[in-house]
Amino acid sequence: MNKVVVHALLEDAAYQHSTVPVTSGTHTFDYAQVYTRSVRLANCLESLGVRPGCVVGVMDINSHRYLELKYALSMLGAIIHPINFRLSPQDVLFTMQHAQDEWLFIWDGFGELGATVSKSIPHTVWMSDITVHEGGLEYESLIDEGKFQMPRAASHVRPEDIYSIFYTTGTTGQPKGLRYSHQQMLMGSLQIAHHLALHDTGATLSAQDVMMPLIPFFHIHGWGTPFVAPYLGTPLILPERSNALEQISLIQRHGVTWINMVPTQLFMLLEAAQSAGVQDLPLKILTGGSPMAMGLARRAAQFHMTFSMIYGGSDQLGSAISTAAGLTGDDRIKQLSTHMMPFPMVRMEVRTATGDLVNADGQSLGELWVQSPWLPDGYLDNPEQSQQTYINGWFRSGDLAIRYPDGSISVVDRMRDAIKSGGEWIASSTIESILSEVPGVKSVAVIAVPDAQWGERPKAIVEASPSVTESILREFLRQAVKQGQLAKFAVPDVFQFIHQMPVTSAGKINKAALRTQ
Amino acid sequence: MNKVVVHALLEDAAYQHSTVPVTSGTHTFDYAQVYTRSVRLANCLESLGVRPGCVVGVMDINSHRYLELKYALSMLGAIIHPINFRLSPQDVLFTMQHAQDEWLFIWDGFGELGATVSKSIPHTVWMSDITVHEGGLEYESLIDEGKFQMPRAASHVRPEDIYSIFYTTGTTGQPKGLRYSHQQMLMGSLQIAHHLALHDTGATLSAQDVMMPLIPFFHIHGWGTPFVAPYLGTPLILPERSNALEQISLIQRHGVTWINMVPTQLFMLLEAAQSAGVQDLPLKILTGGSPMAMGLARRAAQFHMTFSMIYGGSDQLGSAISTAAGLTGDDRIKQLSTHMMPFPMVRMEVRTATGDLVNADGQSLGELWVQSPWLPDGYLDNPEQSQQTYINGWFRSGDLAIRYPDGSISVVDRMRDAIKSGGEWIASSTIESILSEVPGVKSVAVIAVPDAQWGERPKAIVEASPSVTESILREFLRQAVKQGQLAKFAVPDVFQFIHQMPVTSAGKINKAALRTQ
Repeated sequence: MNKVVVHALLEDAAYQHSTVPVTSGTHTFDYAQVYTRSVRLANCLESLGVRPGCVVGVMDINSHRYLELKYALSMLGAIIHPINFRLSPQDVLFTMQHAQDEWLFIWDGFGELGATVSKSIPHTVWMSDITVHEGGLEYESLIDEGKFQMPRAASHVRPEDIYSIFYTTGTTGQPKGLRYSHQQMLMGSLQIAHHLALHDTGATLSAQDVMMPLIPFFHIHGWGTPFVAPYLGTPLILPERSNALEQISLIQRHGVTWINMVPTQLFMLLEAAQSAGVQDLPLKILTGGSPMAMGLARRAAQFHMTFSMIYGGSDQLGSAISTAAGLTGDDRIKQLSTHMMPFPMVRMEVRTATGDLVNADGQSLGELWVQSPWLPDGYLDNPEQSQQTYINGWFRSGDLAIRYPDGSISVVDRMRDAIKSGGEWIASSTIESILSEVPGVKSVAVIAVPDAQWGERPKAIVEASPSVTESILREFLRQAVKQGQLAKFAVPDVFQFIHQMPVTSAGKINKAALRTQ
Repeated sequence: MNKVVVHALLEDAAYQHSTVPVTSGTHTFDYAQVYTRSVRLANCLESLGVRPGCVVGVMDINSHRYLELKYALSMLGAIIHPINFRLSPQDVLFTMQHAQDEWLFIWDGFGELGATVSKSIPHTVWMSDITVHEGGLEYESLIDEGKFQMPRAASHVRPEDIYSIFYTTGTTGQPKGLRYSHQQMLMGSLQIAHHLALHDTGATLSAQDVMMPLIPFFHIHGWGTPFVAPYLGTPLILPERSNALEQISLIQRHGVTWINMVPTQLFMLLEAAQSAGVQDLPLKILTGGSPMAMGLARRAAQFHMTFSMIYGGSDQLGSAISTAAGLTGDDRIKQLSTHMMPFPMVRMEVRTATGDLVNADGQSLGELWVQSPWLPDGYLDNPEQSQQTYINGWFRSGDLAIRYPDGSISVVDRMRDAIKSGGEWIASSTIESILSEVPGVKSVAVIAVPDAQWGERPKAIVEASPSVTESILREFLRQAVKQGQLAKFAVPDVFQFIHQMPVTSAGKINKAALRTQ
């Protein structure tokens, strides 16, 4: 490539890694074919009037078509809006209006939501292997009609042009829109691969891996995997809509070695493996989005999985990944669960409320501030939130963190999830991590409840099998206090058992919902 | 960092890797100290009138001062011109005039050359541990006088601003000037580290390595090592002026694990190791600039060294490094000597004279064309050469190459070094590689001599111990032909023995000199 624009990546892969396979459902292509299809699609869309700067919504599972769209829209200088279909229908429509989507590419498996959403927009293209729909265009027909000739717009696309817009999940209020240029999106994505390769991690990546992204493409473009795979020339397995058992089958069939997913997905994968009698799944896993419970981490190790945690988000892209140079056994697992090393080019500072740096002593708590070359300017059409969050070239994360002498960082809580008791921070994640190791506990959330004397006090909400009682949980915490893992004042006052933990569209525990219950 | 400019790298390292050591001669600093000294220097130079865009020549061995200047000049938005002091004095002065150097920073160990050169320029700063010179300023005094306060210019430096100018060695005519922006210089340098980390190579790099650059900083900034080391946070050992024996001592004392050097330096290092009775030097070596003779490669393996070859140059930066996924033993050594894999983002095409792609069959020869995001626009003030070399976003390398089915490339010769005999290319390097394995042979060069019947025919020029005779060489080649390593018509007609092979300032065999002899 001579310009750092998204479609140049696929063009390079089509030349350098032409025969490397890209598998999606029952389809198997190679990078040369994916490129050809993307060019044809872009060519046809240009003739249909898709112009540079046009915003195109995409609502799809992780498929080859989604992959192609990420490149075809780049060739057109159009802006891709990966729609988070796990948001409420109102929020889905809100993000489409807010982003000013002019076109919608939609998989035909969304049922009622798909029908509702498609009515809201002038141009709809249906993505399916079956080719009959009322109203709208057919994806495969567009490819058939397009010529294998780069759209005229392609050579004018510049690294600084906006490539994508996407939204926060909006656990506190309406989703907020972020826009990233080609250069920002690629730097933020590729730096994940570089960091993983340069460090001793549990998800170390090389050109010899076989990648399967389980993080949905609507979530920060699947953490950059659709860009990293062609960049490295690795085979790419796209899981489409699949359950954990089907994912295990894909892993075994295609020799998948590297996966990304949130801890909840990992839990489901392990449950499925166990029920299917699979004892060995030697995978490298990049996980994040919520803390990794030690119980889950140890269980993954029994399946010969290794993992690292990534820290980042829609409003900063990736910033840090856990490393564990030279460590083995349980020490390694603990370190990989917690110690994030900033990517090269990323600065992370842990600051007090007055802006001073907290000591890098592995204990002092403060707010995490992040700086990187791929930070956005702010939220789209939201000057107030932007001003509060993007300050002098820094991103104010709202996360409570610790810095260690070696420069690594532990994010212990969202500031709003942490409990401030008697002037001291209590990190909900610390208590959650300990309780998750109690046999029979499936899920734990610790939230703050108002307290007249202390300001706030922690309350534990637990999903567990019937054998688990409050006194068992209290005994576990008493031992943790004894071993120095937990301050005595951090032991929750109240324990509540529930049948099913509420989760957000991103698969995280929905603490906002728990607080209002 | 929030902008991809050179000095932001050191600023990050001073924060993230503050206590990691940088050793130079008898001095040991850490990244925080190197940063402090660089800021003080830049601050003082700003007060002395060094403005953005000002060209500053630096003539120094690989020292901490050279390292500091690379960052201090970035902070000022000035342009660093690393002067190749191995050029002839006339050429040194030519490059300084051509680049329009306004300041000169010069080590006081260059003797007469230093005195001559320093007279040619208005502002001279002497770099030394001793602080008495007639005329000019003293480097350490500038640091003492400067405040620890970023120069005002620093925040205005942009990624697209010119960071550096340097020159080709000019084996064919006058040195040609190349200018690179901050972004180009950093991308081209860091992509070396990324490629090494992502692939199975003989010089795989990680954040756990200890780096010692033996490639001089005047040569493409030591192949980017002064940028890569702080980026990774690895210790950096700067060899200053040292002979091979002293280098071995540095390696052992500081636990050096990663070195770059040309094959000639490797040869000298192995000779020194052998004479000193050192049997084990487990180093990862990035080498290039001239072919790696198999004899040298096998000898390095006996010392437990591993290596990879880099392909690149002043007029393209780095473009490819040899890889050897899954290979072991002699197969691995052979592959690492020859099979270059383009960096991600680099396109390499092997084309016929009429511009068609040659078959990727591992045999067909053609000219290598290179495309990358860090290519320069052209040579400085040299529109004619620029037009012939930089064509439609491609760099026309003038190298004769082969492409393999796996996408790797072998550069077999400079086009001008290859022999065209009866319409067929003969690569001089193939013959040189075979003859270098004859016991007693120290150095071989094969050049073209005019021939009435065939157009050109190969002639071998050999530096060897007295025991080596022409009939021994001929017998070796006869065996190589028998084993299919060499075409019969490629066997040289004439063998000439010489006492000492002439070399260029870059340590390569000077074939131009051999041709005129």
